Formats: sequence, structure tokens, C-alpha cells
Amino acid sequence: MRPERPPVTTVKEPATKPEPPRDPARPYELTYRQGTRPGDRVVRVVPTYRGRFTRKSGRLVATEQGSTGDSALWNAIRWRLIGRPIPTERESEERVGVFKGLAVFASDNISSSAYATEEIMRVLALAGAGVLALTMPITIGVVAVLAIVVASYQQTLRAYPNGGGSYIVASDNLGPAAGLIAAGALLTDYVLTVAVSVAAGVAAITSIAPQLFDLRVALGVGFVVLICLGNLRGIRESATIFAAPTYVYLVAIFGLLAYGLFRFATNALPVYSAPADWQPQGTEVLGVLLIMRAFASGAVALTGVEAVSNGIPAFKPVEYKNAQVVLILMGSFFGAIFLGMSFLAQHIGILPDPSEQETVVSQLTRLLVGEGTPYHYLVQISTAVLLVLAANTAFADFPRLSSILARDGFMPRQFAHRGERLAFGMGIIVLAVLSSALIVGFGGSVTNLIPLYTIGVFVAFTLSQSGMVKHWWTRRTTERGWRIRLAFNLLGAIATAVVAIVVGVAKFALGAWMVLVLIPVLIAVMWGIHRHYRRVEDALFVAAPSRLEALSPIVVVPIGRFDRATLRALAVARALSAEIVVLHIASDPADAARFESRIANLNDDGLRPVIIESPYRALGNPLLAYLDTLDRDDPGRPITVVLSEYVPAHWWEWFLHNQLALRLKVQLFFRPNTSVVDVPFRFDRD
Amino acid sequence: MRPERPPVTTVKEPATKPEPPRDPARPYELTYRQGTRPGDRVVRVVPTYRGRFTRKSGRLVATEQGSTGDSALWNAIRWRLIGRPIPTERESEERVGVFKGLAVFASDNISSSAYATEEIMRVLALAGAGVLALTMPITIGVVAVLAIVVASYQQTLRAYPNGGGSYIVASDNLGPAAGLIAAGALLTDYVLTVAVSVAAGVAAITSIAPQLFDLRVALGVGFVVLICLGNLRGIRESATIFAAPTYVYLVAIFGLLAYGLFRFATNALPVYSAPADWQPQGTEVLGVLLIMRAFASGAVALTGVEAVSNGIPAFKPVEYKNAQVVLILMGSFFGAIFLGMSFLAQHIGILPDPSEQETVVSQLTRLLVGEGTPYHYLVQISTAVLLVLAANTAFADFPRLSSILARDGFMPRQFAHRGERLAFGMGIIVLAVLSSALIVGFGGSVTNLIPLYTIGVFVAFTLSQSGMVKHWWTRRTTERGWRIRLAFNLLGAIATAVVAIVVGVAKFALGAWMVLVLIPVLIAVMWGIHRHYRRVEDALFVAAPSRLEALSPIVVVPIGRFDRATLRALAVARALSAEIVVLHIASDPADAARFESRIANLNDDGLRPVIIESPYRALGNPLLAYLDTLDRDDPGRPITVVLSEYVPAHWWEWFLHNQLALRLKVQLFFRPNTSVVDVPFRFDRD
Repeated sequence: MRPERPPVTTVKEPATKPEPPRDPARPYELTYRQGTRPGDRVVRVVPTYRGRFTRKSGRLVATEQGSTGDSALWNAIRWRLIGRPIPTERESEERVGVFKGLAVFASDNISSSAYATEEIMRVLALAGAGVLALTMPITIGVVAVLAIVVASYQQTLRAYPNGGGSYIVASDNLGPAAGLIAAGALLTDYVLTVAVSVAAGVAAITSIAPQLFDLRVALGVGFVVLICLGNLRGIRESATIFAAPTYVYLVAIFGLLAYGLFRFATNALPVYSAPADWQPQGTEVLGVLLIMRAFASGAVALTGVEAVSNGIPAFKPVEYKNAQVVLILMGSFFGAIFLGMSFLAQHIGILPDPSEQETVVSQLTRLLVGEGTPYHYLVQISTAVLLVLAANTAFADFPRLSSILARDGFMPRQFAHRGERLAFGMGIIVLAVLSSALIVGFGGSVTNLIPLYTIGVFVAFTLSQSGMVKHWWTRRTTERGWRIRLAFNLLGAIATAVVAIVVGVAKFALGAWMVLVLIPVLIAVMWGIHRHYRRVEDALFVAAPSRLEALSPIVVVPIGRFDRATLRALAVARALSAEIVVLHIASDPADAARFESRIANLNDDGLRPVIIESPYRALGNPLLAYLDTLDRDDPGRPITVVLSEYVPAHWWEWFLHNQLALRLKVQLFFRPNTSVVDVPFRFDRD
Repeated sequence: MRPERPPVTTVKEPATKPEPPRDPARPYELTYRQGTRPGDRVVRVVPTYRGRFTRKSGRLVATEQGSTGDSALWNAIRWRLIGRPIPTERESEERVGVFKGLAVFASDNISSSAYATEEIMRVLALAGAGVLALTMPITIGVVAVLAIVVASYQQTLRAYPNGGGSYIVASDNLGPAAGLIAAGALLTDYVLTVAVSVAAGVAAITSIAPQLFDLRVALGVGFVVLICLGNLRGIRESATIFAAPTYVYLVAIFGLLAYGLFRFATNALPVYSAPADWQPQGTEVLGVLLIMRAFASGAVALTGVEAVSNGIPAFKPVEYKNAQVVLILMGSFFGAIFLGMSFLAQHIGILPDPSEQETVVSQLTRLLVGEGTPYHYLVQISTAVLLVLAANTAFADFPRLSSILARDGFMPRQFAHRGERLAFGMGIIVLAVLSSALIVGFGGSVTNLIPLYTIGVFVAFTLSQSGMVKHWWTRRTTERGWRIRLAFNLLGAIATAVVAIVVGVAKFALGAWMVLVLIPVLIAVMWGIHRHYRRVEDALFVAAPSRLEALSPIVVVPIGRFDRATLRALAVARALSAEIVVLHIASDPADAARFESRIANLNDDGLRPVIIESPYRALGNPLLAYLDTLDRDDPGRPITVVLSEYVPAHWWEWFLHNQLALRLKVQLFFRPNTSVVDVPFRFDRD
């Protein structure tokens, strides 16, 4: 698309005369002197910006066309997958209220109810079927901890209305080291959240479609990719995707529980007998450690709480109040489902399937409403969809936390860049890759992944709640009601610390050790990145630059022969430097002598001929070797290689020209301290 | 490897004083002015070249180390595969005498005897087994043509002692169009030679190892790759590889024929009865066309003649005389083997295997010396090796002809470049790729490939011999004995023209039409390339450049903020141009305003700030779009983008810096008219 010829004005004037003053009304005008001798032309260029830029009070504003590049095909593919770009100013439109907010932020927590009961029962079953009677007490314990945490976080939301993730609260009150520990623990847990949720969602599907069981790894990775694409589209659309499954699940599961409790009340619970080979062998003795493990497995349900406090800015105003409501609703819904589910499973006497082929929820539903009934399918499918989408909570939180860490210099800067759809693309992609690797590595099994899970989030909870205790204590003179708030947070801190220790001890040998090794490594890496960025920042700092220096590069022009194209390259080199190395790589001594006589004819004192005979016929490497010697001799100075490049008029002309120039450009591309200036030659014009 | 610090001399002096005169004894010294103001430093750089260059009468000579690059691993792999580099001056050492020359240049021709008889019989068998009695007369006809061609080429070798390939002889005497037709026909035929020879070699192997029959395509491609590597090593070593199999084959096959003729003379030829399902159905009527087809199939044997005349420069002095001897020996050996083979096959009454599982030579040997005897294996294996290596003749000729065509501007220039081992690497690789494609496309079948073959070489023969007729005619006043030479060449021209027509007509419907379509296309492409190169050459021509102009580029410096690194980039830009576009891509209006005030503080009249607000958060595309507007406004002028680049001290620092600069460099890499100047920043030094 090349519109009308632009206004290039050529002014012929003596070079001694000063250039005309710039017109302040045309701030984009450029003035260039062609050549260096008296009588040379001065060219004025007034750019035209149609389509790609608009003007606004002396600045240019990039339009969508100017921001997305010219490849119509690539744009079409990208927009079909992730949608058209969204300007930054539309960011606040992307916020959610209570209804959608519950769907987005609570799906992680609420969906945990689909496997929390089962994971408690699996651990207890190791000590024999009789021990399963402990399911209900342990469930009550987990729900109690959840209630404490929700109460404690109500204070956090109020105190940090701009986002009170554990990293912010901990580093704000306890210092950057505590913040970094919380961040490392959370990042690890987000990756596990995705892996566990997706694996559990796949398990819900294979419960009703056993023929898919062997595909569970592929299905899991496929779902991760889909969620990843959904998140690259941005938050509002993902909220829309979410609302339906969350509410369908809530209605379906509450209906099921109500029906089950009605049958319990009327003494009409179904009779259950598990296959003989499912009968637990009682291989382990019931002890404190086993109960701790069962509790730890159930505590996975609390991972969703952090999401709400982290995501306050995504709510509509008044943000923190909406977040508080969502947090309470979430806790209530989850608690009710978890209690009801454990109650019914225990009273019917369901055993977990040792082969992981059918989930406990599926068994329960099947027994209550009959196998293959529409309601059974409704529960299973809505569970599966919700679990898969629950991974989305981590997809919202991981990139947001990464971007905050990147802004603070603890992670590479590109994590802080918002893409075309306002999403933190780098964080989303890294999360998808890591969680897919986990699903593949652990064979898509929920039970194998669970031991790694939960430890991180409770470490973060503890640090966050402890930070809040300090927060209220330092404000004890100014803030009314600090005592009660401090009490809530202290209770939360103690409860979550106890859980963290319980989880760590109970799961240590089963896999939690990996997480406990990984988190310090992650913290060390982030600390190293921060230290590096800070040192570079210190080195880069300038107080107030007032005068601009000039720094001449060493200019090297490799030339095969003298023709119009290479003379043009030399003309550009002349503008770059007063002294130019003209490098000729000669195939034999006769060639070298011929070149020497040609350059002597030119009689230009600024040209420094360097002739390299190349008995091995190499061209690129002797040039590179020569640049190495220059570099070694004056390391601070940039080297500029000027190449003449034929501009093809047709695609096939690429095969006939520039092969050498292209190879040199590739070889020089990664060479530090070196740049290549291509001087174009169009044979119809230049 | 960074040796001792080099001699950089820093001289402080007022800028008004002229620079010191250059010392003529130190021609490599460079002088650079640091900065543009009085009192700035002048830096002198005297490069050190240890290891990579030696000095010779004011020039540098690249050593092997300076020619091969620094990657020890890559060098080790390459040298293991194709050997260490050979300097150009050692070229004449790579020549061959008669003994090795016969092996190199005659293997194509002599090895044809392994399938020529069989291909004649296959065609005749189409008209029933009785017609096979025509095998011997047709063989005699082919040998007669060969004798005429050899006699005719004796004249060519003498007249063109520097290499008398058909392309040279035809274009020299009949004009470039005739030369180009010959070249197009030959290039096509060389590709077919490789495919046919390798396929026939694989057939000789599968005759004694039928279990490999299904792998014949893979085996064929594998052999092509091996020959390709062998040729990248250079000609002398390939001659050494060749001598043994050629002479083993000659000894083995003459032994076999002598034994066969002895048994014929003593009336003790073995009795042969083919399996019943081999009996030819006589589906075609014996007619002129069938006899022509049989003759055409046998004429494949002549393809090797061109090789000798093409390769004269590869012989030791006196080159053309050695070539003449080799040509006569080759014709005699081939004729004797071909006649003997056809004679014995006909008298024993062998039938060709319709499934191509066993060759006629293998059948003959088996009947004479017994199946599975060492002699049977010797004949088959030496035939196979020779056939595979015969492809090597084409690997010598195709790249040599391509390099001549490239030198004359009919093919892309890179075909004329000699690699580290003096081989024309591009031609070798292109030939390997094309012939592998043919083997795959025709399923590795000799019989399927044969119809495409031979037509090209006889077209070239005809043009070459006609050219020689003209050659002698124009020299009729100066050259003694021109009449007899002209008569030989005229006979050759007529004979080969007749064969070309016979082959074209007989094989047209079987596949020769593909070649007859392809050759004109190839000629048109070569002509187009030539026309293009000539136009560019005309445009590039300068008579005698005397004065060097200067051509300022438009300099654009994208800057995020002002720090030491970006100020350094601006300093380099200042040295490149008096007027610099400082481009800031702002994420929001506040950012834009902040940048405006910073650049106003700098108070430098040469800086032209251009601020682009990017509401879609894009960075690369608005920059590209802005460059597009500049380009459109002043198309002739090169654009230089100056980027500041952090030089990492450790590999992992790559992930923390320069991501944007790297992306911009990649985006700008293929943009015509644009170059990127990287200004390095090392935070421990700059």
C-alpha cells in the first residue's frame, strides 16, 4: 500500500549559509544535507502518516493498523485465536462484579470440593475401611480452618484495597525476604493448581467415559492449551466463559446434596457394596501421621482464597467490598458442599476406586440418581468443566504476580509486558508450559500430584497473616478497632502456620520435599535477578544529561570491486566516519594487485585499504577474524560494517544476489559491539 | 582466546592542529577522533593479527585458522566429514594421470555395460522371446555409434585442450543459444545419470540379497548422500576411492567373459530355462519403433563420453593427450564388455526378470560359475560398487558445468564458488538433492528411469559435433588436415543426430517428453538469469571513480528513557548524522509528557523528538510503521536505527536484557534500506 508521493523539497544552496530555521508548526519535518561539500543539496522530508498514526497535541498516536503490523494473514490467525487488540484505556471496562467475580475467582476453591472428600478417604483407606469414619471429622477440621482464613482475609482486603496478595502484604510488613518467600511458594502452587485441577477435570470425564482413560495425559495438555488461549484473549471474556459452568455446577451439586440428605432423612440411602478387590488392605496403621496426611489432602481446598485478595483490582468499584462479598460467598458454598459430600459418602460407605477410574463424586451421584441418567451426566460434565476452568484462577494469578515481581525487578522484564489483549502473555505461556510438563511428568494422576500441592499456599498464608498482625500493631495508635482485626489475623496466622507444618510433615516423603527444595531455589534465582537488575540500574543512572557527546564507530567496508553499488556503500561510510577501512578479500595475488591499483586511483586519503589474501577461499571468516583484531585492540568502540545490498525487484532475484551479504549479516547478527549498515542499491533508481 | 593487550595510543591534542602524518611503515594503523569538540582525544589503533593472519608485502594473508572460524566443534565435525581446507595453490596437485583418470572418468561409461544388454533385452522381450535374437545386432549398432563418437571426440579434445565440453564447443562455434541448449540438455542428463547409476547399483546388490529389495529407495538415497560427501572432499581423494572398484570390475568381468567364451568355444554353455511366468507374452508387435526403442535403451552407454572432454583440466600435463588415451581405452573396454555380454546372454537364452529382482548380469554369472560362489559375489559386488561410484562422473561434471555457467552469468553466482576443499559445493549439493528426488519419485526402478535418460546427452553430442564441423570449416585456410578432422566430426554429428531423433521418437511417450519439456524451461530460466545479471552489471558499471561522495543516512534512535546506555547510543548517532530522530514510544500520555520534558532539558537542537503514544502497547510495529513513512517520503536514503544493547557478562543475562532490542533486530533484519547499529553497553566498563 503506497499512497501518493510525499512532499520532498529539495533546496539548492551554498553550504556556508546557515540552514533555515525550523517551522514550529511542522514538528515532524526532517532536514538532511546530501554530501559534505559546498553547493550540496539540503533535503527536507515531511512524513505522511495516513492510517498508521493520528496526531494529537504534537505527538503521534499509533492506530490499530500501526500497532499490529502489515501481515494480514498473521493478523487474521491471531485475531481469530485471541481477538483484536484492546487499547489500554478500555482496561477498566474489563472489570467484574460479584456475580461474575464469584465465577472467576471462586471456581478454583469451589471446584476443590470435587476431589477434597476423595483425597481424604484415599489416605484413610490405607488404614482399612473402618477408618473411613474419620472422613467427616477431618472435613469439619478443614472447613474450620477455611472459616478462620476467610475471616482473617476480610481484614486483609480492607487494608489493601489495591490488591493484597501475600507477596505484597508480606514484603510490605515483613520486608522483601518474606515477600519473596511468599512469592516463590505461591508461584509453585499456581503451577500445581493448574496441573491438579486439569487432572481432576479429566478424571471426572473418564469416570463416565472410561475409554478415554488412556488418553488422560493428552486430554490434560489439550485443556491447558485451551485455557492458555482463553487467557491470552483477556479477562472479561474468560469471565463470560466462566459464569455458566460455575453456576451450573452449584445448582447441580446442591440439588444432588439436597436429594441425598432428603433420602438420609427418610432413611432411604442407597446400599453400596464395592467390588471385592477394592477392599482396602489396611497396609498402614492408623496414627497421627496418617490423620495429618488425610487432613493435608483435604486442605487443598483452601488454595482458592489467595486468588480473591490478589485480584481486587479486577473488581468493579468499590473493589474491596465486592471482593469481601465474593470471599464470604465462596467460603460458604465450598464449606456446605464439602460437608455434605463427606457426610453422604461416609454414610453410604463409598470406597475410593484404587485404580482412579471412577471418582467418589461419580460413585455417589450414580448411587443416588442411577447410572447413566441425565443427572449423573450433568453432575460429571459440569464438574469436569468447572475443574478444567478452575485452572483459570491460577492463569489469572500467576501472570499477575509475575508482572508485579517483574516490575519490582525480581523476574525478567518481559513478564510485565501486557499484550494486545491486556493480558500478561509471557506469564500465561510460562504457566501453560510448566503445568503441561507436570501433567506429563506425573502421568495425569491427581493422587500423584496432590502431595506436592498445598504446602506453598499455606506458607504464603502464614506470611501474609503474620504481616497483617504486624500491620495492625504498627497502626495501633491511629486505627480504631485494631485489636479485633489483629486478633482475627493472629488466629489466621497461627491456624495456617499449624496447617503448613502439618502439610509439610505429612507429605514430606511423598513429594512435598521437591517443593521444599524448589521454593528456595526459586527465591535464590529471583534474588539474583533483582541484584543484577539493581547493579545495572546503578550503572545506568545519570543525574541530568546536559550535553551530547559524539562517539565515532570504526567503519569497515568489505568490497569485492568498485562499482556503483559499492561506491554508494563507501559514500554512506564516508558520512559515518572520516577514516574508513576498505577491506578486500582477494582470491589470489593477481586479484589483490588489481584492487590495490584501483584504490590508489581513487586517491582518497580517508580510505585505509586492507587487503586479505584468502588461499582457502573463505570470505566470511577472514572478515570476522579481522573484526576480532580490531575489537581486541579498542574494545570500547563500536564497529560498523557497511555492506552494499541489492534490493530485489522480484522474489526470485533473492537467489541471484546478496547471498554473501546475507551470510555476513547472519554471522554478524549475534556478534556484540558490531552493527551492519546495509546500503540498498536499486538498479532502476540509484 | 584473548592475548595480550594491544597497543592503543591515546594522544591528547587540540582539535585545530592537523592530525599527524601516517607512518607508511605501519599501514594498518587506524586513527580515530573521540568526540567532535576541541580537546577531544585522538586514538590510534595498531591491530595485532597473531594466528589468524600473516603479513606479505603490505597485505594480509588469512591462515587456516583465520579462514575456518572459531567453532572447534563445528570444525571437527566438518573436517571429519570432508577433510581439512586445501589452499588454492595446491589445485594442480589434485590432477590425475591415465590410470586414475580412467577410473574417474570412465566409470560412468564402463559401468553402463552392467545394464545396457539387459535394457535392450527388456524392450525386445515385449515382442516375445524369439525376438531376443536381435540383441546382438543392436549391440553392434550401439558400439558402432560409440566408435564414431570416440573418433569424433578425439578431434574435440585436441582443439579444446582447456576443456571441450559441449557447452563450450557449441557456444564457441554456434553461438550462446546453441551452447545453452547443450548445457540444459547435459544438466538434465547428469541428474539422470546419478539416479540411473545408483538405481542400477542397488539392483546389482538386491540380485544377490533379495531381502534388501524393499529398501531400494532408501539404499539409493543413502548412496547419493555418500557420493555427495565424497565429492565435497575434493577430486583427488575421490580418484583414489575409484581406482580400485573400476579395475576390480574390469578384471572380474573380463574373466567372466573369457570363461564364457571358452565354454561357448567348447560347446559347454550352461542350459537355461526361465520360470514359466517369466515367458514374455509378446504383447507388442515387432516393428521399427520397437527396434528403435531397444536401440535407444542400449544407447545409454554413451553418456560417459562427455565426461572426458569436459574434464580435460583435471588431467596431468599434457592434459589433452592423457584425455585422448583415456577416451580410447574407455571405448575399447566398454565395447568389448558390451559385445561379450550380449553375445553370451543371447546364446544362453537368458530372459530378463520381469519383476526386476535379478539382473541379467547376475543370471549370466550364476549360470556360468554357479549360484552363491565367491566369483558370483565378486562380480555382483564390484558391479554394484562401480555403478554407485559411476554416479561420481556426474558429480564431477554437473558442478563443473554449473560453475562455468555461473561464471558466464547463466546460473546463480554461488555455483562458481569453490569451497574449503576446492569443490564446487553448491553444484554438488543441488545434484544430490535433485537425483535423490528422482530416485524417490521413480521408486528406485532402473527401467522406469531409462526412458528419460540419454536424450539429453545426444542432443549435446549433436550440437558439440556440429560446432566442431563449423570450427574446422572456419579454420580451413590455416589448419592442415582440416578435411579429415571435419569428416570425422561430420560423421559424428550425423550419427549422434540420428540417434537423438531415434531416442526422442522411441522414448517420447514413455517419459522422454518430460525431458523435452524440461530442457526448454531450464534454458529459458538460464537465459532470464543471464539477462538479469547483465542488466545489473550495466547499471553497476562505473568508468573510473575519482571522488568519493558522502551520503547521510536518516538516523532514528528509539529510546525508552535517558540513561547512560541510551546516551551512549545518542553519542554514536551524533557521529553518524547532524540531525537525529529520537523516537519514544509512550505507554500513556503521562509517560509522553515526562519524556518531552526530559528531552527539552537536553537542549540539543540536533535532536528531533518524535513521540508515539501506543494505546495498544505495541512497540515494534509502531517503530516499523514510522520507518515506513520515512522510507516512503525519501526512498533513496538509507535508514539507520541506533539501538543500545546491553552486553551480557554471563549467558543467563540474555534472558534479562535486550529482549526488545533482539526482537527489533529480527524485525528489521529483512527490511530493505534499513540497518541497525547496536551500541554496546558493558556496565563494568562503559
